[in-house]
Amino acid sequence: MSMVKRIGVLTSGGDAPGMNAAIRAIVLTAAHHQIDVVGFKHGFIGLLQQDYQPLMTHHVDNIIQRGGTILKSARCPGLHTVEGPRHAAATLHELNIDALIVVGGDGSFRGALAIAEHYQGQIIGVPGTIDNDVDGSDMTIGYATALDTALDAIDKIRDTADAFERIFLVELMGRHSGYLALAAGIAGGAEQIICPEFGPLDPHNLQHIITPIQHAQLLRGKASYIIVVAENSYPGGSSALAEALTNAVGVECRACILGHIQRGGSPVGADRILATKLGAFAVELVINGEHLQMAGEVSGTLQGYPLAKTGDRSKAIDPYLVRWQQQIGRN
Amino acid sequence: MSMVKRIGVLTSGGDAPGMNAAIRAIVLTAAHHQIDVVGFKHGFIGLLQQDYQPLMTHHVDNIIQRGGTILKSARCPGLHTVEGPRHAAATLHELNIDALIVVGGDGSFRGALAIAEHYQGQIIGVPGTIDNDVDGSDMTIGYATALDTALDAIDKIRDTADAFERIFLVELMGRHSGYLALAAGIAGGAEQIICPEFGPLDPHNLQHIITPIQHAQLLRGKASYIIVVAENSYPGGSSALAEALTNAVGVECRACILGHIQRGGSPVGADRILATKLGAFAVELVINGEHLQMAGEVSGTLQGYPLAKTGDRSKAIDPYLVRWQQQIGRN
Amino acid sequence: MSMVKRIGVLTSGGDAPGMNAAIRAIVLTAAHHQIDVVGFKHGFIGLLQQDYQPLMTHHVDNIIQRGGTILKSARCPGLHTVEGPRHAAATLHELNIDALIVVGGDGSFRGALAIAEHYQGQIIGVPGTIDNDVDGSDMTIGYATALDTALDAIDKIRDTADAFERIFLVELMGRHSGYLALAAGIAGGAEQIICPEFGPLDPHNLQHIITPIQHAQLLRGKASYIIVVAENSYPGGSSALAEALTNAVGVECRACILGHIQRGGSPVGADRILATKLGAFAVELVINGEHLQMAGEVSGTLQGYPLAKTGDRSKAIDPYLVRWQQQIGRN
Amino acid sequence: MSMVKRIGVLTSGGDAPGMNAAIRAIVLTAAHHQIDVVGFKHGFIGLLQQDYQPLMTHHVDNIIQRGGTILKSARCPGLHTVEGPRHAAATLHELNIDALIVVGGDGSFRGALAIAEHYQGQIIGVPGTIDNDVDGSDMTIGYATALDTALDAIDKIRDTADAFERIFLVELMGRHSGYLALAAGIAGGAEQIICPEFGPLDPHNLQHIITPIQHAQLLRGKASYIIVVAENSYPGGSSALAEALTNAVGVECRACILGHIQRGGSPVGADRILATKLGAFAVELVINGEHLQMAGEVSGTLQGYPLAKTGDRSKAIDPYLVRWQQQIGRN
Repeated sequence: MSMVKRIGVLTSGGDAPGMNAAIRAIVLTAAHHQIDVVGFKHGFIGLLQQDYQPLMTHHVDNIIQRGGTILKSARCPGLHTVEGPRHAAATLHELNIDALIVVGGDGSFRGALAIAEHYQGQIIGVPGTIDNDVDGSDMTIGYATALDTALDAIDKIRDTADAFERIFLVELMGRHSGYLALAAGIAGGAEQIICPEFGPLDPHNLQHIITPIQHAQLLRGKASYIIVVAENSYPGGSSALAEALTNAVGVECRACILGHIQRGGSPVGADRILATKLGAFAVELVINGEHLQMAGEVSGTLQGYPLAKTGDRSKAIDPYLVRWQQQIGRN
Repeated sequence: MSMVKRIGVLTSGGDAPGMNAAIRAIVLTAAHHQIDVVGFKHGFIGLLQQDYQPLMTHHVDNIIQRGGTILKSARCPGLHTVEGPRHAAATLHELNIDALIVVGGDGSFRGALAIAEHYQGQIIGVPGTIDNDVDGSDMTIGYATALDTALDAIDKIRDTADAFERIFLVELMGRHSGYLALAAGIAGGAEQIICPEFGPLDPHNLQHIITPIQHAQLLRGKASYIIVVAENSYPGGSSALAEALTNAVGVECRACILGHIQRGGSPVGADRILATKLGAFAVELVINGEHLQMAGEVSGTLQGYPLAKTGDRSKAIDPYLVRWQQQIGRN
Repeated sequence: MSMVKRIGVLTSGGDAPGMNAAIRAIVLTAAHHQIDVVGFKHGFIGLLQQDYQPLMTHHVDNIIQRGGTILKSARCPGLHTVEGPRHAAATLHELNIDALIVVGGDGSFRGALAIAEHYQGQIIGVPGTIDNDVDGSDMTIGYATALDTALDAIDKIRDTADAFERIFLVELMGRHSGYLALAAGIAGGAEQIICPEFGPLDPHNLQHIITPIQHAQLLRGKASYIIVVAENSYPGGSSALAEALTNAVGVECRACILGHIQRGGSPVGADRILATKLGAFAVELVINGEHLQMAGEVSGTLQGYPLAKTGDRSKAIDPYLVRWQQQIGRN
Repeated sequence: MSMVKRIGVLTSGGDAPGMNAAIRAIVLTAAHHQIDVVGFKHGFIGLLQQDYQPLMTHHVDNIIQRGGTILKSARCPGLHTVEGPRHAAATLHELNIDALIVVGGDGSFRGALAIAEHYQGQIIGVPGTIDNDVDGSDMTIGYATALDTALDAIDKIRDTADAFERIFLVELMGRHSGYLALAAGIAGGAEQIICPEFGPLDPHNLQHIITPIQHAQLLRGKASYIIVVAENSYPGGSSALAEALTNAVGVECRACILGHIQRGGSPVGADRILATKLGAFAVELVINGEHLQMAGEVSGTLQGYPLAKTGDRSKAIDPYLVRWQQQIGRN
């Protein structure tokens, strides 16, 4: 029998489609176990500023398909101070919160770990970020949707039927890894993928990018040419890389920068299902007395994973896809 | 070193978004290994009628995002005759096809097994069907896209802001199982899900459907009410069920029958990635001398699975989701 | 200078994507002129039950892209009684509403006209219905979105690459006219369009439908065949017509019934723009002292149109498109 | 009775969704009148290089929903030479082309006018460009689709629920005018719209942009803030403007550059209908002996417009919308 009476929830860090579905699953599962839920607004800021609202089942009606998060999100520099985590823990104690569920990326989990130093309750994490760079779960909530958003853009560019007088760079998000870039590049049939896993870009030597382009020009004549680029791959960004390639290849190169478009939109089915399972499982982890664990799904099995290890960046991008792209796909 | 020089490919049975992506991966992978590819049109009919074309890399340019299949598909009653499989094998021998890759559902694999009785080459399967009812792979190509197509419809119905004077039945495909119905029902926040796994419908006693509706009317007043129904759940179809519920509950019940809409559309990222991996892996199975295996991905690992067992229907729908829906979701 | 201090708004009848955009434009325009807005819930029922809320600018933040209507909608049988309109007018007087803006179809305008018999204030209409069958405006709010929803379904069916063993009937909404069916049929490249304007269907003689199908079979062999059908074209609905055609032609005919899917979804750009213009113009009509007028856009010009004539059904479907379809398209 | 026996068609300049639908309508209408159609590839380049193919009805099966153009497109510097137009006319004479239909923007029409100096046949234009800056038709083919593509991006950005620590710039296409920017800004509920019609940007004085931002911060606190920017509005592009605003306002400003994404995608219903009508009408103009006319639709009426005047840039953006945005919307 659960001794837990009240759970706090917050969504933190960059938005991810499916966060609302996770909130909904948490609220419905908690309600089933007669546990109250309190939602903190704007991520950890809500803990510092005591900005919160009760979350009852009617609050989560019809939010499963909504992008964004009804609790809003934010980055919270305040957690990096000495007082911040102490203050946040105090709020949780004052409000008799037995456990806090944090939906976000590993950056948010670090904030949660800081709070845990002062907080007497349980802390459970749910991985919500489009980057899919959190260890402990094959997928993070939001990644599948961001992939389809990127593909929508790549498909539209592919339609563009102009003669081969342009190369298109499509810049995607992914601060630390090429998850999104690799998947979108493969699923979009991109001619090249530039991301950390494929080696760093040397601004003074782009020959390994230029040569395949020239080769394609010879082989395939005038045709569309798309390069998917993970953000932060080139100093000055993709606009600068586009300029450099235009000069080097003698063919107009244009950059499309999707930016925060990738963080929005209605979550696709896979994200809604994942968010529902991880949100429900997070509540079950709380009920089972777990602490400092992240709810994840690995190889189809729901399991807890130490929050402290979620940022180890040991999750590799799919080696089969990397090999395929390099040998057969395009790169 | 591979002794395989020529691979035949065909797509059979009901369409599934991602079939083109699979064809593309097969062609590109084979080309990488200097293996020719011959594509047969309209599924097995192409074998019987010698309707085929060479598939070279340029044939698969820009098809990764296309719904349908460039080889067309069909059901093939001819394979159920005595002569059919023999004739098909003869075509393969005449054309010096060392191996045949069949992209389709377990029905198509049965056809392949029949041909194997007379064919001296290798036969490999790739699971392509929106039903996701094929054993040996967690997902089948086309399922993820069909789920999002169903969700698009459910989301639009949810928007409909009329007072609670209607109940909506959304009928989805899934001949044998409720995979699609369960996933779409959960991801769409449906109030009820009717599918084989949740028990058969007794046309003479719909009380277990009616009671929750009446309960919701009391609790939530006027609000939208959506029931997701797997096809073939009710004699006369969903239109008949809608009529029965209208009479029983006294509230207008309307049916939306998506039908073959669910088989079309541009494949989502997950289906393009899966199709690329399974298509490439199928060629590798051929090169490795495998026979009567289906390329599948289970718990993230690519593996072969005996074609003969793909129709065992031992793949269960997600028990965690079933439990959630029954206890917490709605049912 | 406007003497108007308070405007009432309601959305009535079937939902139409863009209703929220219209509400937003009404509220923002009224605020600009320091006019209060009161929103009545569930259409005219809100007037009868005094179910309303103030609508301030923050209430309409971020609703321009939302399907449905934040004021909900409903049909209101109560307006057909003797007391109903009187009661509704009384509510408006009690609340000091100087003018009422009704967003809906011509059925809702008839309700408004009934209230006008007892109400001393102004009544202005805004055409919101997916049927586009309201006179006085080239387009009604919601029609453009419903067209694209229908096309999405037709495009997906077209993808289905099965041999010509099926004919697909796609049933669309449109109680009185074939606006949606004609436009969707042409834009979807349908082989046939069945709607009132193309002549009634005689259940006992479907030869004029069957002959073109057989002709196409001869000419084009196995290929997809789509017939767009306006609702209520055949007794028993499209499922019954599908059965009749299956028997008559000897080829499986399947029905897809979109139903209320067509009423939902995020409004497309054209509907948001139209809703913004008509909503703003409706407030200007009020300020200018107009009464019993509907805000409409005809040939690019915003103008008022007598509410009483909006249901005359004199708006013809595009004769150029009808001729094209019959001579050149397919029919 | 038409003396025309053969029509040439080409698509030129920037891609526009709906070009395929126009080609289809031209081919089907011509076939109805027993007129042959020859399609030239890559715009005018096909005339110079004699790169063409017959276009029969089966070639246009199922292209109505396809983005891009089956004839490809290109810009053609060769037409700006002395020999170019002469050479192009010679090709047309050699191939016995009685009339040439050019689908493109006013730049393409200038190329057509140059050819007309040497060509003895008729030349008819069809306006295909997402910019909607061609005089003689209220809408150009491709504009409606580009608007919805832009809205899809703006809606996704709006979802992003981060606290007001960012301003988003969404850069849209539109070389000469703010058609797309104005419509997308209004339909997307943008807080500001920057386009030529709203006055030029002075890089040294952005106060008129900064002041409303600061005002909104005070009024609305933390909330999303979106500025739609027409391309070429600021030296260095939107990335540079984003940087300038970040420094000036002290709030992170990010740029999303859609680029050529706006030229692709399946055409929406409005573009398919417009393309069908203008394509058919273009053939009728040919049959009726017209020359140097562009097929356009103005206030719902199909009419010819002198090709020479299509680039006059006298088509104003909607003054009602401009006034609304400035007074009431946001600017």
